[in-house]
Amino acid sequence: MKPDEIKNVACVGGGTVGASWAVLFAQHGLHVTIYDVSDDALGLANAELPRAYAALVDAGVMTEAAATAALDRITTTTDLAQAVRDADYVQESGPERYRIKRQIYRDLDRHTRPEVVLASSTSAMLMTEIQSATTHPERCVVAHPYNPPHIVPGVEIVPGEATSAETVALTRDFMARMGRTPVVARKECRGHIVNHMQAVLYREAMWLVGNGVATAAEIDLAFRKGPGLRLALMGPFMVGMFTSPGGLQDTMVDRKLDHSLEDDIPSRVEREAPPRTPENARQWAKISAEQMEAELAGADMEQIKTWRDLQLLKMLQLLEGD
Amino acid sequence: MKPDEIKNVACVGGGTVGASWAVLFAQHGLHVTIYDVSDDALGLANAELPRAYAALVDAGVMTEAAATAALDRITTTTDLAQAVRDADYVQESGPERYRIKRQIYRDLDRHTRPEVVLASSTSAMLMTEIQSATTHPERCVVAHPYNPPHIVPGVEIVPGEATSAETVALTRDFMARMGRTPVVARKECRGHIVNHMQAVLYREAMWLVGNGVATAAEIDLAFRKGPGLRLALMGPFMVGMFTSPGGLQDTMVDRKLDHSLEDDIPSRVEREAPPRTPENARQWAKISAEQMEAELAGADMEQIKTWRDLQLLKMLQLLEGD
Repeated sequence: MKPDEIKNVACVGGGTVGASWAVLFAQHGLHVTIYDVSDDALGLANAELPRAYAALVDAGVMTEAAATAALDRITTTTDLAQAVRDADYVQESGPERYRIKRQIYRDLDRHTRPEVVLASSTSAMLMTEIQSATTHPERCVVAHPYNPPHIVPGVEIVPGEATSAETVALTRDFMARMGRTPVVARKECRGHIVNHMQAVLYREAMWLVGNGVATAAEIDLAFRKGPGLRLALMGPFMVGMFTSPGGLQDTMVDRKLDHSLEDDIPSRVEREAPPRTPENARQWAKISAEQMEAELAGADMEQIKTWRDLQLLKMLQLLEGD
Repeated sequence: MKPDEIKNVACVGGGTVGASWAVLFAQHGLHVTIYDVSDDALGLANAELPRAYAALVDAGVMTEAAATAALDRITTTTDLAQAVRDADYVQESGPERYRIKRQIYRDLDRHTRPEVVLASSTSAMLMTEIQSATTHPERCVVAHPYNPPHIVPGVEIVPGEATSAETVALTRDFMARMGRTPVVARKECRGHIVNHMQAVLYREAMWLVGNGVATAAEIDLAFRKGPGLRLALMGPFMVGMFTSPGGLQDTMVDRKLDHSLEDDIPSRVEREAPPRTPENARQWAKISAEQMEAELAGADMEQIKTWRDLQLLKMLQLLEGD
């Protein structure tokens, strides 16, 4: 199959990520079927679709007529076999549990034509461990987006050990056709590329909250008004090239940003903090979540989401070509 | 002293960060003396100042006349005592080594009036370990910016154990007067708030490069086109609030972004990678630096710096009020 032969797409899982993928695919002229387990789940997706298109119209990315036509190309169903029967490409965005993923891929394997790519949105899981449940593991691959996938362009393509080069190339080219910026990982890794990095970023953020160095809102403010601004423009390595006249070697190797090297003294809070056990980690995460929920008590999350979409679209316009 | 009584500032260390601080202070009407150890070092600073102001003029932030007047308010010297004698505030951006920092603060302590704040730009070090070299430790504090400080608004204020509340308040208010967004850490921590998080981000990025998961350029592209875009708009916790309908609790606690919890399988590269020893970490950093240097071979870094400044200023205008 070639990328431009893909006309019908199935989004398996219609949650935050799955619904946004559907918006993207239909925006690019494809017919999309969203599958989820219940009418309740599909109800949330059906509410999200018009909101997402309205923001695209407001930002001048689509006309109202184009948005209406795109919306008309999306259907929903609780019947998996029906959802994927005519699909030329499947984007799976189901629960992040191996047991559930394996069951989904077993079902997809049965109900799709064998040449159809089965791509997973999984944030951190390994396709090697999922594709082994299928009879055609070569067509299974990770295509991991960032929320919301219909706006944020980056997509990580990560093959499992049994994934074919053809599947990787087709997925990469299809994502490019959808206006995305695909990056293919050279080796499969937990968290792929970026979430392998982000997982520890979140881990330390929750540690800071849990041990009273700063509140979740203070961390967000410091990050957003500091490195966040640059990271929209340059990746971390490029940022490091400008940190000192000696370039990255100086920034990284000469220890400035590596606590594990010499001439380094841990702070009192680092010396006295309880150890990072799964129980403590859960507790720190819980405190972080509670602080954010208190911070946002009474906030209109739908309104914030639309503000986010519009600002991201304006930033993309500003950064176009970079 | 009150923030608006600060008229003369000394920038001790005129490297990448120190020169940019000078641009900011003079832009806001202050008289600035940059100190560095050699005429060569000051030559680099003197070359950087007009480039930085030209970008501010190009972006419409200052008029040409205002930029010229600001530039005229900056002088340079290799005489530390002379640099700080009339200073109402000292911003130190010297080498990141405790032995050197302590010597600098001992000298600053001798040559400044005792009520003058001595603020350090240090990226990760503890003021507790530095201020003990002085007779007035209460006026020593960390005020950590992001490169370039005259554009990126975030500043972390971190007191050492002997820092007075008055020093913290004065530094915070002075930074606000300079148009910055100060965030005060509640406890002193290695890497403060954000670099405590970024240190592990870089550590994992270099691990990925060193173990062949992706090249430095691929990592930069994936990060910039993915989460980087959002992090200019929202901090990591706010991003997590939108990742799933269950909010942050679901994203963080229900393990999706925490590899240390259950139902998790390490990848082959994670199982087979050599251990993280200081030698291996240095090697991974070296490979990352070499890749970036090869990537940028022949690139005009000054031109890229100016492009960065202009794009950051445009993003700030776009995000104003957020």
